[in-house]
Amino acid sequence: MEKFILTIAREYGSGGRLIGEALAKSLNVPFYDKAIISLAARECGLAESTIEQNDQKISGALSYGLFTTVNGLPVSDQVFLAQSQVIREVSEKQSCIIVGRCADYILCNDPRCIRTFIHAPLAQRVNRIRELGQITEDDLEAYIRKKDKARAAYYEHFTGLEWGRAQNYHLTVDSSIGLDTTVDLLSELVRKRKI
Amino acid sequence: MEKFILTIAREYGSGGRLIGEALAKSLNVPFYDKAIISLAARECGLAESTIEQNDQKISGALSYGLFTTVNGLPVSDQVFLAQSQVIREVSEKQSCIIVGRCADYILCNDPRCIRTFIHAPLAQRVNRIRELGQITEDDLEAYIRKKDKARAAYYEHFTGLEWGRAQNYHLTVDSSIGLDTTVDLLSELVRKRKI
Repeated sequence: MEKFILTIAREYGSGGRLIGEALAKSLNVPFYDKAIISLAARECGLAESTIEQNDQKISGALSYGLFTTVNGLPVSDQVFLAQSQVIREVSEKQSCIIVGRCADYILCNDPRCIRTFIHAPLAQRVNRIRELGQITEDDLEAYIRKKDKARAAYYEHFTGLEWGRAQNYHLTVDSSIGLDTTVDLLSELVRKRKI
Repeated sequence: MEKFILTIAREYGSGGRLIGEALAKSLNVPFYDKAIISLAARECGLAESTIEQNDQKISGALSYGLFTTVNGLPVSDQVFLAQSQVIREVSEKQSCIIVGRCADYILCNDPRCIRTFIHAPLAQRVNRIRELGQITEDDLEAYIRKKDKARAAYYEHFTGLEWGRAQNYHLTVDSSIGLDTTVDLLSELVRKRKI
């Protein structure tokens, strides 16, 4: 199989991470999600806990004024740059799957990059999050909307593009067709694509 | 195979119609595109040529004032209603594939309906249209953009939804992955979906 990098952007609770992990296992390639955090920590010399706190966050106008660091960049921007560097490095080395962190945009000029977006109806995402039982918020719908809004804002801040616009991706999938079916479709895309 | 209706919305020049025809052939189900026009003509009693002229057009404010008909609706709205009726009727009868005409929205409450959107980078669409040699416009890019704009306006006028927003579809595909690969992915979706 030709070398590829498959990026997965995903709505909160859509199962995008699980789909990525299952696909990585089935194609026998590395999977990068949170793992990028520790690699990025080494890259930029920040503590791993600082990276985690600033992961997929953007600097507000206020914090831009108050919390710039010695090299003149807010921590969240430094984290983005360090993660971008890691994404470029790991994608140079081998085929892999990367979830989130604007990887589709960072690798948009790489012809081996396959860009995907996973979403699902809100009601299904509420059910999935409820069944997992890890989030104790009373209003799960509001919580999910807030998470999506933050992801869209992060993506648009760093890329200038609209998160979830079909034309930004090779494939977008509503995971309510089934997580296994979604994995099968992505796998078929990797194997048969002409890009 | 369980009964299904697969709808294809598509950017101009993305190969959406060809993909739909190939898929219909491979799954051995009827394909509806322009065929809806003549069926709709019988439905609403308008001449087929009138339907063709008003197919996928919306009424401007001016024509609303000038060209309302005896039952108080502009011809383009009558055509939309007649086509909607035909879409509901053919989808009741058997599995089928329907291209364009807001079929995804018209059938959005039908659990057997699979909604898809096909797009492709502008440069590839220009090449496809140029190779087909049927359009004699000097500025093909501008021509394609105008066609897309009209399709988006038509969709948004009748549905209130954003044309090409990933979340409106079960699957969106960039057909630059290959027309055959796109047909294979849609076929896999039809066969394996859990919706």
